[in-house]
Amino acid sequence: MIPIFRYPKKELWQELAIRPAIDNALIEPEVAKILLDIKNNGIEAVRRYTSIFDGVSSAQFQVSAEELRTKANEVDSRLAKAINTAYANIEVFHKAQLRETAFIETMPGILCWRKGIPIEKVGIYIPGGTAPLFSTVLMLGIPAKIGGCNEIILCTPPNKNYSIHPAIAYAAQLIGIEKVFILGGIQAIGAMAYGTNEIPKVNKIFGPGNQYVTCAKQLVSKEGIAIDLPAGPSELAVIADESCNPEFVAADLLSQAEHGIDSQVILVSDNDQVIQKVILAVEEQLAKLPRREIAAKALQNSKAFLVNTIEEGMDLINTYAPEHLIIACLNDDDVAKKVINAGSVFLGNYSPESAGDYASGTNHTLPTNGSARGFSGVSVDSFLKYVTFQKITKEGLYNIAETIECVAQAEGLDAHKNAARIRFS
Amino acid sequence: MIPIFRYPKKELWQELAIRPAIDNALIEPEVAKILLDIKNNGIEAVRRYTSIFDGVSSAQFQVSAEELRTKANEVDSRLAKAINTAYANIEVFHKAQLRETAFIETMPGILCWRKGIPIEKVGIYIPGGTAPLFSTVLMLGIPAKIGGCNEIILCTPPNKNYSIHPAIAYAAQLIGIEKVFILGGIQAIGAMAYGTNEIPKVNKIFGPGNQYVTCAKQLVSKEGIAIDLPAGPSELAVIADESCNPEFVAADLLSQAEHGIDSQVILVSDNDQVIQKVILAVEEQLAKLPRREIAAKALQNSKAFLVNTIEEGMDLINTYAPEHLIIACLNDDDVAKKVINAGSVFLGNYSPESAGDYASGTNHTLPTNGSARGFSGVSVDSFLKYVTFQKITKEGLYNIAETIECVAQAEGLDAHKNAARIRFS
Repeated sequence: MIPIFRYPKKELWQELAIRPAIDNALIEPEVAKILLDIKNNGIEAVRRYTSIFDGVSSAQFQVSAEELRTKANEVDSRLAKAINTAYANIEVFHKAQLRETAFIETMPGILCWRKGIPIEKVGIYIPGGTAPLFSTVLMLGIPAKIGGCNEIILCTPPNKNYSIHPAIAYAAQLIGIEKVFILGGIQAIGAMAYGTNEIPKVNKIFGPGNQYVTCAKQLVSKEGIAIDLPAGPSELAVIADESCNPEFVAADLLSQAEHGIDSQVILVSDNDQVIQKVILAVEEQLAKLPRREIAAKALQNSKAFLVNTIEEGMDLINTYAPEHLIIACLNDDDVAKKVINAGSVFLGNYSPESAGDYASGTNHTLPTNGSARGFSGVSVDSFLKYVTFQKITKEGLYNIAETIECVAQAEGLDAHKNAARIRFS
Repeated sequence: MIPIFRYPKKELWQELAIRPAIDNALIEPEVAKILLDIKNNGIEAVRRYTSIFDGVSSAQFQVSAEELRTKANEVDSRLAKAINTAYANIEVFHKAQLRETAFIETMPGILCWRKGIPIEKVGIYIPGGTAPLFSTVLMLGIPAKIGGCNEIILCTPPNKNYSIHPAIAYAAQLIGIEKVFILGGIQAIGAMAYGTNEIPKVNKIFGPGNQYVTCAKQLVSKEGIAIDLPAGPSELAVIADESCNPEFVAADLLSQAEHGIDSQVILVSDNDQVIQKVILAVEEQLAKLPRREIAAKALQNSKAFLVNTIEEGMDLINTYAPEHLIIACLNDDDVAKKVINAGSVFLGNYSPESAGDYASGTNHTLPTNGSARGFSGVSVDSFLKYVTFQKITKEGLYNIAETIECVAQAEGLDAHKNAARIRFS
């Protein structure tokens, strides 16, 4: 089922690392038209598209405080406890990301510093669909709260009953998100980007979504609204040597494959036996899964690679740049040192990806589709802007005035030169 | 010349903060066509467009090591000393941005960490045009070097003599950039995004440029190539009370205005006299500037605001979100604490923007066009990806297995649940 590539030549790696293309070109004009309509006509357009796309007409998009509380209370105590545990771990890990402001005197009299200032207003999009992703509420809401964002908006599409999912309500309430809107798709992205009299305008939009949501995020980002990450289907690579447990590896591959038919999993090993055993275990476990049809289709996009050494395997993985990487190798710590391009890395036989997806503390909003080569996953930094400051004394400026004037002159910018000179004339 | 708005109502601020629109829609199809041609035809297309747009045909784009050395040696000792001083300050400030990796045990047996890993290959674009911006070579090259990027590519457009500007060569050599290409415009961005057999493919592209370069960067970013910042014309806001020196403020405003006819400067004061004096000084100083025509046009896009208090003025400035902000106020330290949206802030009467542009140590690649609401300027972090890692012991996983399983089940993801459960069955 999973095709095996044995000892692929290095020249072919780049090509083997290419994901199935996602082409937004076809839907882009339509998405752009809808966004423009929302920009021009505000809430009226948002209401109209909600009626067209979601088949519901709503008097009010915002979930009332009472409704939020009522729904949150529907979460049973076992799930509430699980969400609380996940919350605590995510909070501990993300709080450690806050940085002290360092004041640096670069030369006598020249004091420079860089201060993390929270982005005032952020929007979180939580998709509906087959699974209510309340874990993403935690993964985006907790760092937003730690970062100190003034206003956190949450949009999630309507379900059949036009009600908020209890677990989403519970997670939102735990974080303290008060502005929750039942609103989905392009409408939600447009409303948050441009603002309407019901849904406030935000400075940055976070969260996963379907092709339309992704395309809308991409388009509003051209107008200066920041977005979290370029989106793509979820991915997992596993590098395994003979120390691995093939049953565990198979379960991990399947946990990725069940996300969607466009998910991709990659297995890399220096041992042909390991590959064969894992593939066998995948087939056995697959049969028992409720989402087996989705997973089976995802496995068709997947690949197994037999390589000469684990070192070579890591080179191949760095070429691929997976969103998630599990290192199921005896020397996992050493192998981890070779990671260059990956979103989140899991070491050893007892670090399944699902731990990081939900509960260990790391963030699950990660770079996909090879963008791990140039992007980081979401962190508290994603909710801050670092603003630089400088305070120069008269003596400090005197000491670098010559430097400023000389560079300005060489760049042909006389007024720049004058701005230093005038202070001493 | 600069229009004065006296006590503008808060409802109007948002509108007053809007910059003249930059519309790439007209040029986008042409830029996209050229990029696609470069993607498909590589160096042959790059060569063809260089001939069409720059009127030069080149056998080789890369500047040889010898040529780089020879050109660098043409820099006179005064300028070399100035570049060295700027280099030292920029290095000191940016080195302090490196972070230690913190290992966090979120629960017993669950160890998580986040490691800054350099982006392997980065491209720096240095525009040609009226001024050779070698200071930008320092501002992008130094943090790339400190970050540890493996390969730094520099592209800069050909001049009449098809030679590299000595100061650019000097700055590149100081940093240790070996791969310098005389190549400009859409061709340079396309070559760095897709790679050709002469110019390597990079993972992230930095640097300013004209509308075509900006549009090309925006388009390749849709294909997963990271870019530094959404680009726009340069801006400066000055907030000044009666303690300011109007001559200094005028010189600062002009240093921004001379950048280009699309530059924008904003003056905010609680004192009408200050505004009048500054505008008078601007007119006097303008007459003596070589680039007075450019500056005069830029001033037409500019605005002065009289406000009731400096506090209110800061609210207005946070609404505007300037790239640069000078605080020429008696209580500059207190006023600085109110900064929410700005790229880089200069405190007091002896911190001109040109200090930060060149030599004090802070970076000059900053968010423009209001994007300071959601973006930071360039720093060492811009050249790193933060990858998360986790290593969980068997006991550690056992302790959160219930949490993982419970959340997975509520999200309807059975294989996620199974990935935890199988390790204990």
